[in-house]
Amino acid sequence: MTEDPLLLHEKDARGVVRLTLNRPQAFNSLSEAMIAALQASLERIAEDPAARVVVIAGAGRAFCAGHDLKEMRAEPSLDYYERLFAACARMMLTIQKLPVPVVARVHGIATAAGCQLVAMCDLAVAARDAKFAVSGVNLGLFCSTPSVALARNLSRKAAFEMLVTGEFIGADEALAKGLVNRVAAPEDLDAELGRLLAAIVAKPPVAVAAGKALFYRQLETGIAAAYDDAGRTMACNMMDPAALEGVQAFIDKRKPSWADGSR
Amino acid sequence: MTEDPLLLHEKDARGVVRLTLNRPQAFNSLSEAMIAALQASLERIAEDPAARVVVIAGAGRAFCAGHDLKEMRAEPSLDYYERLFAACARMMLTIQKLPVPVVARVHGIATAAGCQLVAMCDLAVAARDAKFAVSGVNLGLFCSTPSVALARNLSRKAAFEMLVTGEFIGADEALAKGLVNRVAAPEDLDAELGRLLAAIVAKPPVAVAAGKALFYRQLETGIAAAYDDAGRTMACNMMDPAALEGVQAFIDKRKPSWADGSR
Amino acid sequence: MTEDPLLLHEKDARGVVRLTLNRPQAFNSLSEAMIAALQASLERIAEDPAARVVVIAGAGRAFCAGHDLKEMRAEPSLDYYERLFAACARMMLTIQKLPVPVVARVHGIATAAGCQLVAMCDLAVAARDAKFAVSGVNLGLFCSTPSVALARNLSRKAAFEMLVTGEFIGADEALAKGLVNRVAAPEDLDAELGRLLAAIVAKPPVAVAAGKALFYRQLETGIAAAYDDAGRTMACNMMDPAALEGVQAFIDKRKPSWADGSR
Repeated sequence: MTEDPLLLHEKDARGVVRLTLNRPQAFNSLSEAMIAALQASLERIAEDPAARVVVIAGAGRAFCAGHDLKEMRAEPSLDYYERLFAACARMMLTIQKLPVPVVARVHGIATAAGCQLVAMCDLAVAARDAKFAVSGVNLGLFCSTPSVALARNLSRKAAFEMLVTGEFIGADEALAKGLVNRVAAPEDLDAELGRLLAAIVAKPPVAVAAGKALFYRQLETGIAAAYDDAGRTMACNMMDPAALEGVQAFIDKRKPSWADGSR
Repeated sequence: MTEDPLLLHEKDARGVVRLTLNRPQAFNSLSEAMIAALQASLERIAEDPAARVVVIAGAGRAFCAGHDLKEMRAEPSLDYYERLFAACARMMLTIQKLPVPVVARVHGIATAAGCQLVAMCDLAVAARDAKFAVSGVNLGLFCSTPSVALARNLSRKAAFEMLVTGEFIGADEALAKGLVNRVAAPEDLDAELGRLLAAIVAKPPVAVAAGKALFYRQLETGIAAAYDDAGRTMACNMMDPAALEGVQAFIDKRKPSWADGSR
Repeated sequence: MTEDPLLLHEKDARGVVRLTLNRPQAFNSLSEAMIAALQASLERIAEDPAARVVVIAGAGRAFCAGHDLKEMRAEPSLDYYERLFAACARMMLTIQKLPVPVVARVHGIATAAGCQLVAMCDLAVAARDAKFAVSGVNLGLFCSTPSVALARNLSRKAAFEMLVTGEFIGADEALAKGLVNRVAAPEDLDAELGRLLAAIVAKPPVAVAAGKALFYRQLETGIAAAYDDAGRTMACNMMDPAALEGVQAFIDKRKPSWADGSR
């Protein structure tokens, strides 16, 4: 089911939503319309109790090549660029605020804001021949907004090296540096992704939603405040019927019997 | 010398205190009584000038399997869970505030709050066949309090993957991800631990106490404030007789002659 | 061209400035005069529009062995040490504030404040036989100021282990832990460094200056504020003639034609 030629939005029976960037001729670059389409799809997912996990993938030969430079160059103005980067950042932060995990499925190249998109997803699975770069600096445009995401995934020196050299790293290096979670042979990419998705949809969505929100919230505070927040979050989670049943099932040495949970 | 059947508390002549979680039949789970016993032992160590380093180990086949689920399930109430997680977090933070380093000695499994305990120790040495997971999500209880510790040890995506999948990682992967410092063959675990302990007890305790406190304090501030604090801390440390003697010995090309230092 | 026997300050035609710590008989230790010479050179570079990248290297057998212990021991006073560590921290922070990238070229040993210097540089290239330690604790002086830099480069447990044991790690381990970016055979060290420098001087300096400043600024804020700042920074960067030309050249499938840019 396709609402928008720019972005394919499909959901399967398990609640796996697959968003496919669908501008293969432009390496799925993040035009204004693409950013808006992603924003709209993410907001729709946030309201959909049947959604359990999101995959972001790219059609054609690349995952995503970043901003649409032709569009950007057409009418240069400070005001326009500020609005563009703000809209893009808002979409990226919507990923983090989503009550379900978001997984990047990376093949081909992921460059500039495309690399940022990988970094902003909660999880990422990459084909072994995928390549990653924050290459704006090669054009005189330092990838400052991608640096926000990159610096929160990679060690400081590794992030700075990518930003200042603009050079590509391969998938195995991206794995070692913390940018992706798993790497698979290209022909096994969907199988590896499938294993991760299966693990996620097997969990009660209330627990995942509360846990994901807490995870990002507590990262931004000191450790004592983080524990206060986490303790309250976990106490609430424990009172949820899914957790009470899950713990009881563990004690009884049986499988938990969960209704098809809503968030 | 055993005060409490739940927790063995031993100290050797060098000041190495070994706390052994001693509920092997329950995989050393952190019941309320176990948390209280750890809190009491840690507070006693904080007041003991002869203590130089702490080892936390587990009796039997596991390091620690997290909270005691049977106890937790017995009388479910939000208030009870909030108090339980607050008491556990307080104990975990007491480890960080202790004036001596705390080393986790990990064998078997370290799951949920047991994995959090590894993450909260200053250092960790693991047997190669040890396994780590934050597996609460498998029961519908996202490991939110463990996430506070995990997210401060591992990269963001690696921590989130463990939390949302609940899957085990092995000791070598835990080492690569930053959760433990050293991995040894099971039969060499205590020898490897012993080398680390010997290195620590050879240092003047005043320096270690001041340095450990500063280390965690400065992590929670911006870099300029961190340097202000660190500079003052190091100046005080330098005025300590042990440092003045240590530096003089270095200049004289001899071994420092340290009295048995108190903190 | 040598202004100061303590510190060699050379600049080539491309704008590569090489600062060579030149007290080989003292393993290039950071005496008060050396710290002052570095501060003066860094401030001069900040004002020099022709400077594009800085290399910090050491003459003789070592990169840098940290503070000058003989000088430190001569007249012990709290006030003196506070001023010394404040001057050193100010110099270290000047590296981070510099509008051009700073690369450590590490050979031999980098210990205590010498290891901190590596950590504070934006990038580091090391000879495979280089060794790194924060060894003050061996003398009773915990490396508190180095811990500020180390904890912002390495994972928490890896940093704490180095600080509390004072033990050396090799270059490959430093690479795996995030302390350096690249490791080369000793005879290839300058070639590897040269590749990194060539990549940097090929970029427009306005973009690099704005991007570096934003990189460290946004690390100290929450992610939403970081994106606000980064978006504004990138919009400004995009309005710069070098970026407009770079993006246009990309669209036209030609090389950008950049005048010799000033910051």
